[in-house]
Amino acid sequence: MITVNAYAAHEAGGKLEKHQYELPDVSGEYVDIKVEYCGICHSDLSMINNEWGMTQYPIVPGHEIVGEVIAVGSEVKNVNVGDKVGLGWFSESCMHCNQCIGGNQHLCGSAEATIVGRHGGFSDVVRGHWSWAIPLPEGLDMAKAGPLFCGGITVFNPIVLSGVQPTDKVGVIGIGGLGHMAIKFLKAWGCEVTAFSSNPNKKDDIIKMGAHLVVNSRNPEDLESIAGTLDFILNTANVSLDWNSYLTTLAPKGKLHTVGAVLEPMEIPAFSLLVGEKALGGSPLGGIALTRKMLEFCVRHDIYPTVETFDMSDVNTAMKHLEEGKARFRIVLKA
Amino acid sequence: MITVNAYAAHEAGGKLEKHQYELPDVSGEYVDIKVEYCGICHSDLSMINNEWGMTQYPIVPGHEIVGEVIAVGSEVKNVNVGDKVGLGWFSESCMHCNQCIGGNQHLCGSAEATIVGRHGGFSDVVRGHWSWAIPLPEGLDMAKAGPLFCGGITVFNPIVLSGVQPTDKVGVIGIGGLGHMAIKFLKAWGCEVTAFSSNPNKKDDIIKMGAHLVVNSRNPEDLESIAGTLDFILNTANVSLDWNSYLTTLAPKGKLHTVGAVLEPMEIPAFSLLVGEKALGGSPLGGIALTRKMLEFCVRHDIYPTVETFDMSDVNTAMKHLEEGKARFRIVLKA
Repeated sequence: MITVNAYAAHEAGGKLEKHQYELPDVSGEYVDIKVEYCGICHSDLSMINNEWGMTQYPIVPGHEIVGEVIAVGSEVKNVNVGDKVGLGWFSESCMHCNQCIGGNQHLCGSAEATIVGRHGGFSDVVRGHWSWAIPLPEGLDMAKAGPLFCGGITVFNPIVLSGVQPTDKVGVIGIGGLGHMAIKFLKAWGCEVTAFSSNPNKKDDIIKMGAHLVVNSRNPEDLESIAGTLDFILNTANVSLDWNSYLTTLAPKGKLHTVGAVLEPMEIPAFSLLVGEKALGGSPLGGIALTRKMLEFCVRHDIYPTVETFDMSDVNTAMKHLEEGKARFRIVLKA
Repeated sequence: MITVNAYAAHEAGGKLEKHQYELPDVSGEYVDIKVEYCGICHSDLSMINNEWGMTQYPIVPGHEIVGEVIAVGSEVKNVNVGDKVGLGWFSESCMHCNQCIGGNQHLCGSAEATIVGRHGGFSDVVRGHWSWAIPLPEGLDMAKAGPLFCGGITVFNPIVLSGVQPTDKVGVIGIGGLGHMAIKFLKAWGCEVTAFSSNPNKKDDIIKMGAHLVVNSRNPEDLESIAGTLDFILNTANVSLDWNSYLTTLAPKGKLHTVGAVLEPMEIPAFSLLVGEKALGGSPLGGIALTRKMLEFCVRHDIYPTVETFDMSDVNTAMKHLEEGKARFRIVLKA
């Protein structure tokens, strides 16, 4: 039996408080990871507030974890005690369905999320299935790597999935925790990158990250000026937008892909898709092999999220900073 | 100067009447085709009735033409007098933009439709650019081939564009002029084909065409029984449907593709796309090279639309038959 020292919320909207819980000694296919850093994702906040109606209290948030493997069960493959690994939104999947066997473990119907019905990384130890404890490649900076395991793979996957080419002109909607990583990936991909942002205070940062153009998405004239030019647009915003105005910025065969879980149905005129052979897609996170490849890509191109670091003991200050929209651009807790 | 003997409507909703018009002798890159057969497409009706606000009267409808080349301009390539060719929705495109040069002439911003601002195939002669006068492969049955040049390529293109594989389970919504050809193509493609139809009178025909399963799309239980199973759904209907109920029949990574120009915006919940990495697409017709390949595929697999044939002189009877929803499944006029 081990005792885990964590931070938990005990009710919707509750502050995070010190919380101890016990786990049986690790066994079978599971590994225990000593948390060194844990990113904060907006979905941690959504889960604390039970916005999706699936929170079990007390909840220990945190699903952008990097740390060291400190114990492994007898059936564990691929990772060993002492390995540095990352663990993201998912920490288990069935390993035998067509999606898992086919390399799309993130689409497994029984995949389990790290903070849904189990406890996450705002703690000293977290447990997961060996397959999702992804070894960090040599040279990856652990202090900034955590957000790659949720936000990072969420925006990396659509680039690969959609077949984005270095010759493409691409756009990113919403330059926050996810969007700023998308800009960095797409810049390294070789694309011409347009950022859609309505916040003038972010413009300099956005250009520094690699965007070639910043378009004010609240200005119809700005959108019109790039009509018919983009091959791919990634939406990271969670709010309802005038989707058709973005579709008109797509070139023929262009795709609008959303990773933002907008609650209201997206209104898509069929004619806008038909005439230019356009598409709308969506995706959640990414598979295990692709996550590994993303990490190698990050090392090769020196790509990291732009992070602000707080001590784990200041977690409530960090959450407030996030909630107030002040994060530039992702927050990481240091254990 | 040549005199063309055609059937034209002179006002929205008007009957088709004998109409003569003159054309200068063919020159440059154009060819004249003696019409032997011409299919009737629902868009001929829409154009006669000016539903899209772009009809110029008198209008000579007809854009599913097969016939013989009787004259060519001095700059014509690829076709010669005496060749049997087909001409579809488009009869000209710029030949130099990225879309044309890239093989997607149907996405050319200045492509010209056969019956928009020019005269179509309800006539003895029609004129088009040589590139869109597509030579018929040896062995193609001209009496049934006309509808391939609009309806046929419209449903064939999405299959190729979407990367449909013979291992896929696919669905077709709306089993009419377009949908019935989609079933035949997808059956020959090697797929398991589900037809969505609410008309019990069509069921036997649909099974004979090659569908493995007919699902009553008006029955929620029928839709639920195939939840999460289809890799690709082609919508050929022009009416608003409960799109989300079709998205739920898609397997992870599945795609719903519409060629039906539904007028109301399609309401698409982002969450339905996100969770299963699904997509929504649309397309109009197809490129020239793909049309040629489709014709070869039709000869190899003996695929033709199921047609009812009327004499060109009975064009008004034929249009009435179409308008009343009685066509089983495509009407062809014989010159």
